[in-house]
Amino acid sequence: MTNDLRSPKGAPDSSESSAAENKANTKRERTLVPSQLFSPASRRAFLQGAAATAAAFALPRWSHADSNDINAIGAEIEKRHGEAVQRLQEWIRQPSIAAENRGMSEGCELTMRMLRDAGFGEVTKVPTDGQPGIFATLDAGAPRTLGLYFMYDVKQADPAEWSSPPWDAAIVDRPGLGKVLIGRGAVNQKGPEATFLAALHAIRGVGHKLPVNFVFVAEGEEEIGSPHFPQIVHRPEVSAALKKCNGVFMPFASQGLDGQVSMFLGAKGVVELELISSGERWGRGPRKDIHSSNKARVDSPAWHLIEALGTLVTPDGNDPAIEGFADKVRPISDTEKKLLDEAARRMSEADTKKLLGVEHWVRDVNWRESLELLTSRPTVNIEGLVGGYTGPGGKTILPGKAVAKIDMRLVPDMTAAGALAALKAHLAKKGFGDIEVRMSGGYDPTSTPADSAIIRTATTVYRHNGIDPVLLPRLAGSWPGYVFTGDPLRLPAGHFGLGHGNGAHAPDEYYVIESNNPKVQGMDGAALSHVEFLYEYASTT
Amino acid sequence: MTNDLRSPKGAPDSSESSAAENKANTKRERTLVPSQLFSPASRRAFLQGAAATAAAFALPRWSHADSNDINAIGAEIEKRHGEAVQRLQEWIRQPSIAAENRGMSEGCELTMRMLRDAGFGEVTKVPTDGQPGIFATLDAGAPRTLGLYFMYDVKQADPAEWSSPPWDAAIVDRPGLGKVLIGRGAVNQKGPEATFLAALHAIRGVGHKLPVNFVFVAEGEEEIGSPHFPQIVHRPEVSAALKKCNGVFMPFASQGLDGQVSMFLGAKGVVELELISSGERWGRGPRKDIHSSNKARVDSPAWHLIEALGTLVTPDGNDPAIEGFADKVRPISDTEKKLLDEAARRMSEADTKKLLGVEHWVRDVNWRESLELLTSRPTVNIEGLVGGYTGPGGKTILPGKAVAKIDMRLVPDMTAAGALAALKAHLAKKGFGDIEVRMSGGYDPTSTPADSAIIRTATTVYRHNGIDPVLLPRLAGSWPGYVFTGDPLRLPAGHFGLGHGNGAHAPDEYYVIESNNPKVQGMDGAALSHVEFLYEYASTT
Repeated sequence: MTNDLRSPKGAPDSSESSAAENKANTKRERTLVPSQLFSPASRRAFLQGAAATAAAFALPRWSHADSNDINAIGAEIEKRHGEAVQRLQEWIRQPSIAAENRGMSEGCELTMRMLRDAGFGEVTKVPTDGQPGIFATLDAGAPRTLGLYFMYDVKQADPAEWSSPPWDAAIVDRPGLGKVLIGRGAVNQKGPEATFLAALHAIRGVGHKLPVNFVFVAEGEEEIGSPHFPQIVHRPEVSAALKKCNGVFMPFASQGLDGQVSMFLGAKGVVELELISSGERWGRGPRKDIHSSNKARVDSPAWHLIEALGTLVTPDGNDPAIEGFADKVRPISDTEKKLLDEAARRMSEADTKKLLGVEHWVRDVNWRESLELLTSRPTVNIEGLVGGYTGPGGKTILPGKAVAKIDMRLVPDMTAAGALAALKAHLAKKGFGDIEVRMSGGYDPTSTPADSAIIRTATTVYRHNGIDPVLLPRLAGSWPGYVFTGDPLRLPAGHFGLGHGNGAHAPDEYYVIESNNPKVQGMDGAALSHVEFLYEYASTT
Repeated sequence: MTNDLRSPKGAPDSSESSAAENKANTKRERTLVPSQLFSPASRRAFLQGAAATAAAFALPRWSHADSNDINAIGAEIEKRHGEAVQRLQEWIRQPSIAAENRGMSEGCELTMRMLRDAGFGEVTKVPTDGQPGIFATLDAGAPRTLGLYFMYDVKQADPAEWSSPPWDAAIVDRPGLGKVLIGRGAVNQKGPEATFLAALHAIRGVGHKLPVNFVFVAEGEEEIGSPHFPQIVHRPEVSAALKKCNGVFMPFASQGLDGQVSMFLGAKGVVELELISSGERWGRGPRKDIHSSNKARVDSPAWHLIEALGTLVTPDGNDPAIEGFADKVRPISDTEKKLLDEAARRMSEADTKKLLGVEHWVRDVNWRESLELLTSRPTVNIEGLVGGYTGPGGKTILPGKAVAKIDMRLVPDMTAAGALAALKAHLAKKGFGDIEVRMSGGYDPTSTPADSAIIRTATTVYRHNGIDPVLLPRLAGSWPGYVFTGDPLRLPAGHFGLGHGNGAHAPDEYYVIESNNPKVQGMDGAALSHVEFLYEYASTT
């Protein structure tokens, strides 16, 4: 499944050119900036937002001793910079691709060694019906325990499409960014994960105990939809350990090119599937492609698919029309409405439309309504259509098969299983029961309370770094946080981390190692944000 | 445009294995067999049909002298076999691909030289707004004049897909067939055309004058839909020459693997086009692919296309529902109904279904009705669907563009221009005026009277060779015969020729040079069928 917390792939990096104008490598020189994922507000709009929320800014509760520690750890991070970069390079040079069953054992073993090197005591490989997971603990004798979620797999990569080979992990100068590491997994997710490990090494390097204990879980199938992740988390010893935590987080490069951060109190669930209409299964139409002149007397699986698709959404293509699909949609709460009001005020509609390349929202709704739809409505989307002849020009065939690639986004209290069942029942009722529904991945929505320790901690650290994150009810994308936030654990779960990268699932995926944009942190600054997070989390009640 | 008079591509060659059992190279040993394009009738059904129609069999009207001539010409054809094969090889080794603008001038010049070599006096290159055509005449001082239609272009070929390179024109032994020439254009259309030229060389070789005069036209854009063919035919000197003819024919390898032949009194017209739904043109939805989570607030060009497609046909996908599209459909005549009755009796429904890989006709109509639909109803067919992510698995995008490749088959008195206009008006009226309609090729239907000289001549020669062709009102496929049969010329036009090949538009296209199947003619037998055609045509009133 896509770790689609970041901006849409293929969207222009609109701030790249302006960032290029500022070459100063001022690692900790941060300015107040609003949200990520969404585009920047205008300066005026931002200042209004900053003024309105400044009174609510929390300051870190760190003791004077803690502050001294953090300064020392920051110096240690810089001292160990080369070591941290080499660790990330070693990791990326070991591809682990679940979709190709490639390097999985090696990648799992390497990740386990890196955990031991970082101070984890118990590090165990967890078998599943698919690729193995990892369970590890680090007991620092601290009062509080934090859950950690890692993935050690990466998306496929076609070296022909890369300017620097995806398994070389080369460090390259990029105008407007600085020194970046290019490689598959650079930002999704080995870069941020290695940055977190660098934070642990630095804390230990200055001779300090870690301020919190850790319970760690990792999977090797995130990029194929986390099908066996519940088997890892729901093992008795893993669940028992996780129950000691107040929350679970995944290291993340949260900053946009403009340094902004958005925070999400959960994420939509998702079901990815193919609808396959074939003469073979239908019992009508041809089993293989035949000459198109036969359309006059032979049924068409392609038309059959078109007719079936037409029943799945309203005539404007915008609302799900699958019977029973949205029955469990929980109405948006007053608290969520207030978050959306605030987000709509602080974020720029014009810039967002420009970034997405759109001129109108559905039904020409306003900006505030577009944000509510984005965060609170389920969707049925066509990712792709593939049928018959797909090359240039035409070819006179009546195809034996046609496929629609669909994703459905789910909001609380929908479930992936319920959505899939509703779709199948709908198709059967409408006369399309022969159309194969092949689910390739997906999971339930995930929600985390705004007042949970990890959300409060993240907010405090971002603000301490001069970033006032926009808080949104829910990410419109998806990640498998439901394994933590759902039954039986019901733990808060989210992402955290300064730093920037891009190109997840695309060629030339990168992670910024040394930033030349003062608003964006490089690997060292990102590692220090994790140090701050851990000290803040330790002192949060 | 596809010269799709032959069996659907990709359909199994069902008779190949049985043909392999008979190795005798008995070139003129022919048995009575029914239709091509449609599958063979059972032996019992065939014998019934043969008995019913035997009384109507015509015998050639050739004089005793003619018969002697034909025997001598047959011997001359065999003597010149090597020369004829080399001529075909030279032709194939000069690719002329209009779609790639490759070798067009060379191919045109080579064809012109071959015409001069075969005895044509005036051979002229005819410029058009596209690739040049050829106009040529051969005045034999005969009472009758015959029109000839050639194409000198061929379809594209990817050598990687071929077992023998497409421009090598190698002669290869093929089990069940004999010696075949493999190359692009082998059967579509250089093989049959070179066979016709071999017939002319043989007649001249024995010192005879040709029994008819010729008016010849060729185009180099048949494979891209003959867009400029009218510019050639409608030139005053060409039209004036063609008006002296009683009909126009194209050399063709008419025999199926079982030796059968079907004849068609015309062909459906066709329009091939793409329907392109894009955010760019729509002004809604994204201009490029964006992250699928945005579906909640952004319109989808893919759903827009699905909704538009749904309006083009009836809910079962079987009948055009485009307003005004079928207004000019001429009802089927009593004569046509009788042809269909006869065809339904003589052809095997079970074998046809097996060949096509279908179990039911649309709406479960019977065999007779399926043939009537095939020959008399217009269609709207989906050739292909291409949108968004088309690779394995899924990718969470909302595509900025989606395309449906469509072909529409037309029957008299529909026109290509009328069909296109109706489609555009329909889309505009239904709210899909933004969807681009990009026509790539097509033309009007063509019809030729059953009592025309070329049809009667072809029937007589087939029967003389022991083949009782099934006569059908219309081919469900398409060819640009309308240029001859429509205004202003209104000439009968059709195809003729024994011989066999396959793989038009596909890899390993072949033409049988020496047949080891007694029911199928090799190149010499096919050339002799043309000699017979010319003598029969000369004596037909």
